[in-house]
Formats: sequence, C-alpha cells, structure tokens
Amino acid sequence: MAQAQFQAETSARGEFVRQANRFTGRVTAESGSAPGEGPDEQDRWPLEAGRYRLIWSRACPWAHRAVIVRGLLGLEDAISLGTVDPIRDDRGWRFTLDPGGRDPVLGIEFLAEAYLSTDPGFQGRVTVPALVDTVTGRVVTNDYPQLTLDFSTDWAPLHTKHPHLLPADLRPEMDALMREVYEDVNNGVYRCGFATSQEAYDEAYGRLFARLDALEQRLRRQRYLFGDHVTEADVRLFTTLVRFDAVYHNHFKCNRNKLAEMPELWRYARDLFQLPGFGDTVDFDHIKQHYYGTHPQLNPSGIIPAGPDLSAWIS
Amino acid sequence: MAQAQFQAETSARGEFVRQANRFTGRVTAESGSAPGEGPDEQDRWPLEAGRYRLIWSRACPWAHRAVIVRGLLGLEDAISLGTVDPIRDDRGWRFTLDPGGRDPVLGIEFLAEAYLSTDPGFQGRVTVPALVDTVTGRVVTNDYPQLTLDFSTDWAPLHTKHPHLLPADLRPEMDALMREVYEDVNNGVYRCGFATSQEAYDEAYGRLFARLDALEQRLRRQRYLFGDHVTEADVRLFTTLVRFDAVYHNHFKCNRNKLAEMPELWRYARDLFQLPGFGDTVDFDHIKQHYYGTHPQLNPSGIIPAGPDLSAWIS
Repeated sequence: MAQAQFQAETSARGEFVRQANRFTGRVTAESGSAPGEGPDEQDRWPLEAGRYRLIWSRACPWAHRAVIVRGLLGLEDAISLGTVDPIRDDRGWRFTLDPGGRDPVLGIEFLAEAYLSTDPGFQGRVTVPALVDTVTGRVVTNDYPQLTLDFSTDWAPLHTKHPHLLPADLRPEMDALMREVYEDVNNGVYRCGFATSQEAYDEAYGRLFARLDALEQRLRRQRYLFGDHVTEADVRLFTTLVRFDAVYHNHFKCNRNKLAEMPELWRYARDLFQLPGFGDTVDFDHIKQHYYGTHPQLNPSGIIPAGPDLSAWIS
Repeated sequence: MAQAQFQAETSARGEFVRQANRFTGRVTAESGSAPGEGPDEQDRWPLEAGRYRLIWSRACPWAHRAVIVRGLLGLEDAISLGTVDPIRDDRGWRFTLDPGGRDPVLGIEFLAEAYLSTDPGFQGRVTVPALVDTVTGRVVTNDYPQLTLDFSTDWAPLHTKHPHLLPADLRPEMDALMREVYEDVNNGVYRCGFATSQEAYDEAYGRLFARLDALEQRLRRQRYLFGDHVTEADVRLFTTLVRFDAVYHNHFKCNRNKLAEMPELWRYARDLFQLPGFGDTVDFDHIKQHYYGTHPQLNPSGIIPAGPDLSAWIS
C-alpha cells in the first residue's frame, strides 16, 4: 500500500490499526425498496438474484472468506464474481485480468471508481471483498465480517445448498471464538507484519502463537472448530492458515514455526483444503504475488520467494 | 551495508558479486622475518604465539569458521580473540562490546581503523574475520578461506589438539566439495538474499537447493561429509547450516524448506552442534540481530523476528 495510507493505519506505538469498513449496506428481503430500486432509508438493498457483484482478489483472506461461503451456500448463480489483479499499485485494486482491463459487468478499470462514485470523498484504502450493485454501480458493502453472516441469513431464500454454517445454538460461542481468531490470528498476522516497532511486533507475535497453541489444543478433540461439521468459524480460520507458510511465516515474520509444524492445525487445514469450495478457491501464485509485490515497506526488491514447497497441501 | 557498497557488489543482472578479499598475508615459520618484525617481501609474517589477534563477529559465518577451527586445533592461547558488535552501522564493524568501546588490545573503536592504517586507500566493505598484528596494528589477512587452511598447516607448531581437519589424502576431493559448497551454499544464501532481480534470485535459489539435496543424499551414507571424522569441510558447511532457519530461510528467502525439514542435514547439523567448538560458539541472538538489523534494503523496519523456535538444536 502507499506510504501515506500505511502511516494512516499505524499508531504512535507502531501498531497496525486496520481502518474501519466504509460501506455497510445490507441486502435483505426486509428492505423497503422494490426490485431495481436503491437502498431504503436504513441502507437495506432489495434481495435480487443476479443484481449484485462480488469483487475479490484471490490473494486476500477477507475476500476469500466471502467466496468460500458463497460457494458453500450455492450462491454462485445469485451473485456474480469479479476478480482483481493480485498486485495493487498506487491506484489500488485493478481489473487488469479482464479483457481491455475493465470488469466486464461494471465497466470499470479500478475498484476505486466504484468507491468514489459511492462516496466522492473517500480517501482510505480500497478493499476487497466489495459487494457492488450492478444497477447503480455503487458499493453496497465492504464490511467483510457482516457480509458472510448475511450470506447465511438474509440470502437464505436464494441458497441452493444448506451446510448450516451458522447453527443458532452455537452462535454465542462461535461469535466469541471468531472474535478471538480475528484479533489474534486473522488480523494478528497483519499486526505482526505491519508493526513498525519491535514492541508492537513482539506483542502481536505473542498473541498470535498463544492463540494458535490454544487452537491446536482445541483441534485435538474434534475434527473442526465446532465438532464434526464445518461452520463459518472454520472458513475464517482457514483463509489465514492456508496463507501461513506461503506468506505470513516469512513476509510477516510469523516465524515461531510453520503451520506444517503444528500437527493438529496442519491436519485440520489440509482436511478443509480437500473440501469443495476450499482448496479449489486457493491460488498460491496470486497470494505470493500480492504480498511480496504490494508491500515495498516490507520487501523493497519485490522479489517473490520461490518457496515454500506447497505440494504437501495436496499429498 | 551502505547502499553504495551494496550497489558496488551487484551486477547488471542483479546478482550479488562478493568483493575480493583485500589482505592476503600469511603467518608461517617459513617467513624470512624475525620475531617482532613485519612481513617479508612475500607478505609472510613470522609465526609467533600471542602476536596476532583474530577479530570476529559472532554473527558472521566466515568469521565463525575461523573461530571453530582455532578451537578445534587448540590455538586459543596462541591467537587472541576480539569480538565486534553484531550491528554494523555506516562505519562498519564496531568494538562497542568492549569497555570504552575500544578493542582492549588494538585500542581501536572500528575495525575500519586497522584496515585504513594498513591501506589508507581502502574503500571496500570492512569484513571479518580479520587477523590483525598487535605489534603494528596492521591487518595481516581477511582472506577467510586461506586463513583456516593456514591454521591447520602453517600454525601446526602451535597446535595443542590434532583433529586432522585437512587429511592429505582427501584434499583434492575436499577442495572440490568445499568449492561447490561455497558457490551454492555458503555464498549461495547471500546470492539469494542480495539478488536485486527475480532472475538472479531464482537461479541462486535453484542452485542452493539442488546442492542441499545432493548433500542430503551424501549424508545418508556417512556421519560427516568425509566419513566418521570431522574435517574442515564440515566446519564450512556447519556455519551456514546453523544460520539457515534462524536467518537465511526468511531474511534471504531461502525458503523451499527449513533445514529442520531435511532429515539428514538436520541430523548432521545437530550432531556437529553437540561437539566442543561448534554449538558453544553459536550465538543465535547475535546472528539474528546482525542480519535483520544490518540490511535495511531487505528489512527496512529493522524489526527482529521472534522466531524460529531454536530449542530443537539442543534437544
């Protein structure tokens, strides 16, 4: 990311402080708007198959969540998918993978165009996932933690698969665990990598590995985080774990050990990798290109490590 | 190292090209000089116990070689030892670990002072190991590959131990192997880390791991590189291996796998680690401080990773 934005997300103590998500619209059958209309006064958009477009980077763990959940719920026909280039330059995420360098549905070259047409004063970091309305070109939401919850709930009328990613009886415990995993692991790896003081790094590193140790213990007792069935909590942990040895271990200095050196987490992550919707949405090439190519403050040369040997994921 | 020096050691293709060693004096009983005198016309200095001082950094693999060989041959009383700070600043290696910030024998604050008093026009990178004459303050040699060979041969009259690090009958094969190990492993890790083009990095990485694979095969057949006895070839390989997971794996992008993931090399390196003169001369703290703190072109933040867990070396 650009230096000014990097500084904007760094505290005086050298801690990475992730910016708030700018857009928080919801898509729901409870919207007061009719099909084809914009959001109601509570920023609720009408639920319509084919109307909204999910923009993701294959590199990004937050966007990856949304794509996995979309697939597990069978929402592929209801929500189309646009993919950005793994390298983010000064202008942010780009549609350079598409013919002519434009998203074929939205007709834009940069995701920033959708952000700015929604909020002309937007000055933060343009992020994925972004759910964009194809009628108005406006960003409905980039609020990734809410987005996947909404996929399971508000989007239920359009589900074609029913894996019960958010069992009601488990929600309180799931919410607590997902919060811990967010703080210490999902965002924790970024807090290691983007720390600008030794103190901030050491603290993030300590919390990260303490949490991974606790998860390692938890997974000795059960196949997935909440027993024998995959839940959204597994999706959220998976998208960080699958990037761990490929980028976080080296690039973000999360190097007490590799994931492959934690037997239960490694077993668990490879188990999930085998499931439809998980491993088939992982692109290690995009992941490595993005991280090593987009953070000159961490990797000035831009050289992409040839390792690690990732064949063990599929063996 | 400073940016100008970094550029001076980088080819147009982005390859790291290590500077030549500036000083190549020899200490030998065959010198034409009498005790207390300077070198003869062939730059041969008289062999004298207590006259020369070996300057090393605990971080540096080239200097580490010399200290291990000195110890294995029992030359500690014959050659005194000065230790520099693990962090090299713009003025190079510093004696900040000593009272008053000066080497207590040579009386200098920076190793560069000895270099410049020997060659006032010296403009390269000041390196360790350096063997310095305590009578004149001049650098006898910084030619690390020759230095350790000389310890085994020219210094034989002062040996107090006799491990036969250079068996005559093995020399041709040893020289060939040590050359390959130098090119692909000892210097190969630097060629990975200091490459400034993807092409130069990829080539160095390929050669490094091909050589490590060959060594892994070789060590399936025997305890050490040349059978049941430690030779200088083992010393030279060890000083790179012991730094591999601590710094080269991450900082130099030598990340196909950790050393701990190569069973024979890992067994071999830990075997050597247990021997007197090997593990007791390893300082992981200095190693990590040096690499992560001295190469801003690779690690602008200067943050030192907390990992890896190195306890396996002694378990």
